[in-house]
Amino acid sequence: MWGKELFYGPYFCAEQQTRWYELTERVPHGPTIAMMQKLAKKHQMVLVVPVYEVEMTGVYFNTAAVLDADGRYLGKYRKHHIPHCHPGFWEKFYFTPGNAGYPVFPTRYARVGVYICYDRHFPEGARILGLNGAEIVYNPSATVAGLSEYLWELEQPAHAVANAYFVAAINRVGTEHPWKIGEFYGKSYFCDPRGKIVAQASRDKDEVLVADLNLDEIQKVRDTWQFYRDRRPESYGEITRTRAAESSEAAN
Amino acid sequence: MWGKELFYGPYFCAEQQTRWYELTERVPHGPTIAMMQKLAKKHQMVLVVPVYEVEMTGVYFNTAAVLDADGRYLGKYRKHHIPHCHPGFWEKFYFTPGNAGYPVFPTRYARVGVYICYDRHFPEGARILGLNGAEIVYNPSATVAGLSEYLWELEQPAHAVANAYFVAAINRVGTEHPWKIGEFYGKSYFCDPRGKIVAQASRDKDEVLVADLNLDEIQKVRDTWQFYRDRRPESYGEITRTRAAESSEAAN
Repeated sequence: MWGKELFYGPYFCAEQQTRWYELTERVPHGPTIAMMQKLAKKHQMVLVVPVYEVEMTGVYFNTAAVLDADGRYLGKYRKHHIPHCHPGFWEKFYFTPGNAGYPVFPTRYARVGVYICYDRHFPEGARILGLNGAEIVYNPSATVAGLSEYLWELEQPAHAVANAYFVAAINRVGTEHPWKIGEFYGKSYFCDPRGKIVAQASRDKDEVLVADLNLDEIQKVRDTWQFYRDRRPESYGEITRTRAAESSEAAN
Repeated sequence: MWGKELFYGPYFCAEQQTRWYELTERVPHGPTIAMMQKLAKKHQMVLVVPVYEVEMTGVYFNTAAVLDADGRYLGKYRKHHIPHCHPGFWEKFYFTPGNAGYPVFPTRYARVGVYICYDRHFPEGARILGLNGAEIVYNPSATVAGLSEYLWELEQPAHAVANAYFVAAINRVGTEHPWKIGEFYGKSYFCDPRGKIVAQASRDKDEVLVADLNLDEIQKVRDTWQFYRDRRPESYGEITRTRAAESSEAAN
């Protein structure tokens, strides 16, 4: 399994400029996907390909396409949770929140789900990917040192445990001019369904992280911790509720 | 805040015997709550009181009552997620799954939510407690060394971060005859909304764990990580779905 993030451009959300809209392209009928399809086929490799997607003029998504090992386009995931916060993650300027669910793709090697960057802070989508049958969830991120670094090895291992699947957490490295919003701290990893990090890249070097993952461990873990058996979906209604001002005040 | 678990009986779910049903009592109109109300008032202390509750003959819940610092009964939480697994956690024999939601109680000192033991593996209830306004979530547990111990400091700190509230995680210590299902590993703790454990008890001694918690930190953390702002409840419908055989097969 290949855990390297696939976009080499800068993290342009460090500023808010319309010129970056020009980077958008169609998915799957754009140049990046076409190029990556050839590479997937050539290397017999499943690829998760982050792209700045245009659906229509003015409607752009933070998207990742999934390509099978024969180059076939299997579908895409559109990031649901869009940050907009210091010190320079102004993503609401660039992205419409995802509107295409939490799909899982039956690739040649595993059933793959995708979650993107800030999505990782939200247990709900991670759960739905599990319910939809994900064996490995890939999350390409761009996150800098500071508050987030401690969480890097807490939240996604917790998702792996709660949902008994593997997680591939990907982060870039280095600092990017001219914005210098901080140091991207790398530390990409694979985590198993017990919440243990089984392979990890460095903090400061571009790397391809390779790991053998035994998908049979998913069955073993689910034999031990029967969380899917014991869930109580009928009691979770409040999770889907958009709150009225009145109920919000009642809680305070 | 007082984090000590309040039942001194054995963890009888290590066997499956009807004689333990005799321990049940009414909540709030049973002897344990009456006794604890007096103690709460005497010590001006908010109490979370686990009780084996009877609603009607044959319908029993794993319940915790919340008493305010003047002894007033504020309400109860009934454990939703009921384990039934090796090496001796046969809880489905004893407990009807909770049916009374995820309430939060405005006590004199904080808005308190309760989650019980195995509930901690499920991010959904933890989230609803946050949506309902919890500032501190108390979880009285009985869990033994082995697979669960690594998760003890992973899952609940992840809940604290995802929901930006404090967690008080309580576990018993020692081994219990005659069953010897393992060593209860203690390590009760308070965790802050950044996911950091700020006070922790020992692995093997009965203790009262005391910590000062600054509830203003909740505002600070939510100013930084605006997870409640950026949730996408309208996209989370699958979490509440009880799955039909057909959809379940489609995922496999």
